[in-house]
Amino acid sequence: MAQIPNRNEIQNAHEWIRPFIHETPVLTSHLINEIAGAELYFKCENFQKTGSFKIRGAMNAVLSLNDKESAKGVVTHSSGNFAQAVAYAAKCKGIKASIVMPENVTPVKRDAVLGYGAEIIYSGNNPEDRERVCDEVIEKTGASFIHPSNDIRVITGHASSAIELNEKIPGLDCVVSPVGGGGLLSGISTGFHHFSHDTKIYAGEPLNADDAYQSMKAGKIIPQKNPNTIADGLRTSLGSVTFPIIQELVSEILLVSEEEIISAMRMIWERMKIIAEPSGSVAFAAVLKNKNLFKSKKVGIIISGGNVDLQKLPFK
Amino acid sequence: MAQIPNRNEIQNAHEWIRPFIHETPVLTSHLINEIAGAELYFKCENFQKTGSFKIRGAMNAVLSLNDKESAKGVVTHSSGNFAQAVAYAAKCKGIKASIVMPENVTPVKRDAVLGYGAEIIYSGNNPEDRERVCDEVIEKTGASFIHPSNDIRVITGHASSAIELNEKIPGLDCVVSPVGGGGLLSGISTGFHHFSHDTKIYAGEPLNADDAYQSMKAGKIIPQKNPNTIADGLRTSLGSVTFPIIQELVSEILLVSEEEIISAMRMIWERMKIIAEPSGSVAFAAVLKNKNLFKSKKVGIIISGGNVDLQKLPFK
Repeated sequence: MAQIPNRNEIQNAHEWIRPFIHETPVLTSHLINEIAGAELYFKCENFQKTGSFKIRGAMNAVLSLNDKESAKGVVTHSSGNFAQAVAYAAKCKGIKASIVMPENVTPVKRDAVLGYGAEIIYSGNNPEDRERVCDEVIEKTGASFIHPSNDIRVITGHASSAIELNEKIPGLDCVVSPVGGGGLLSGISTGFHHFSHDTKIYAGEPLNADDAYQSMKAGKIIPQKNPNTIADGLRTSLGSVTFPIIQELVSEILLVSEEEIISAMRMIWERMKIIAEPSGSVAFAAVLKNKNLFKSKKVGIIISGGNVDLQKLPFK
Repeated sequence: MAQIPNRNEIQNAHEWIRPFIHETPVLTSHLINEIAGAELYFKCENFQKTGSFKIRGAMNAVLSLNDKESAKGVVTHSSGNFAQAVAYAAKCKGIKASIVMPENVTPVKRDAVLGYGAEIIYSGNNPEDRERVCDEVIEKTGASFIHPSNDIRVITGHASSAIELNEKIPGLDCVVSPVGGGGLLSGISTGFHHFSHDTKIYAGEPLNADDAYQSMKAGKIIPQKNPNTIADGLRTSLGSVTFPIIQELVSEILLVSEEEIISAMRMIWERMKIIAEPSGSVAFAAVLKNKNLFKSKKVGIIISGGNVDLQKLPFK
């Protein structure tokens, strides 16, 4: 049975985090609607504080701490957008954040975290290493651990984006979110479950990191092995909190190839003139690939983030 | 004495072209304000139809034609944004457009023009060639010539962006526009002259294509020789219509290096998550270079366009 945040919890989280986040715009493009054969509404979390939706969940988790917990700080492991989000959220609350990052993290991501005043603790480059180092920090400092996706506080915070999208564009037939660890997808599907029950929820997932697809098919969590996708935010696996929610509330996981991700990203950049990262382009890629499924429908699409390394772009 | 469109002419042009263009958003960034030490308001013409402000002037010029003129179509020479703009404007009005382009035009620009149903006539790669070919088209077909910048109908159309910016953000201390042929700068300065007289107008210009700076200094038009700048929309020279307007209404031309243009462009992409082309980043580059001049002021900045070739980006 899934542990699903209720309506009040989501609304409270939204009110709570609101002063610290942007209400991101919902953009449309006639040209892209023509290409897709549907009415598409892009919820632009690439314009969010810290460059991705992750601040919603991170902020809610940090604000959930009591004084005693706050005094001991927070810790997470992430080499990507969640690292920046926790660092920023902790800075907003004035508490200490320790971020466990792999040694091979890119300088631009490292600098963003340091810029928010967080401490970086380097671990090896595999998941076991970073979890071990996290545990060491917790044991030493008593810091509260915030998981990047498999945490009900994080999911509840992410659900705020569903409230905003539904308020701005009521009556969406469906919404498509990317899925990695499943935090955003759980939040989106929970939010629409409560605030627009008839809206169907789909997810886009890289074929080369298809654990959500495999897990849904098997009816149990099949962890991701050796993900090999440009969508670096979607290489993680579903967890014990996110999987049951997704199983209960999500209609279908739609797989897309690397070429389809890059092509969707290119279309967003060229036609909409906005920067979406590869992970942030996966939901749109899934819509372009499944035109019949979305034909003439009102479709919300989550552009989850816009943090890219301009020196390593995939356009050829 | 400058021929300056009056208040009514600008308002009428705005009402006329409005159904065919976007009212582009004005974006802000706390982080960029901190960096610049000023309150910056970015007028995002990169989100405009056809990807740049040029559609404003092109549309106004095309809509100014009478039935007899319309029947014979329009012609222009441009290898860039004005080509797309005239092609699109002609399509909206249902008239024929011939675009004279150099043989070495990039496929993406060629395809955009063809996509709007315009005819391309290839010329050699130097200005004399394209003017000669333009004249041949005019002689043969009787088509109306629309100059990309040195045309009062075009300037009057561009002035509509000043109306929009001033309505959304009243009381700007100054506005900074890029300058190439001077059509946009003439339009912006004319618009503010009528609708917010106290707003000072500045221009950003590439050091490597500094004809506007030299012309202002000399008090006469000094045509650009061998421009060598990444800001490909700003390689052209001021003309007999634009120069007197700029001389009368613009406070100062601020020069920026290639590195400063690229660095400003990078900041727009990375911090604001939107795509500005090099020419569209020149005004912001000028503000970053002259922090004292703009310190603590309310500054409008025109991002003139967002058409880039993703395969040829300058980031290293």
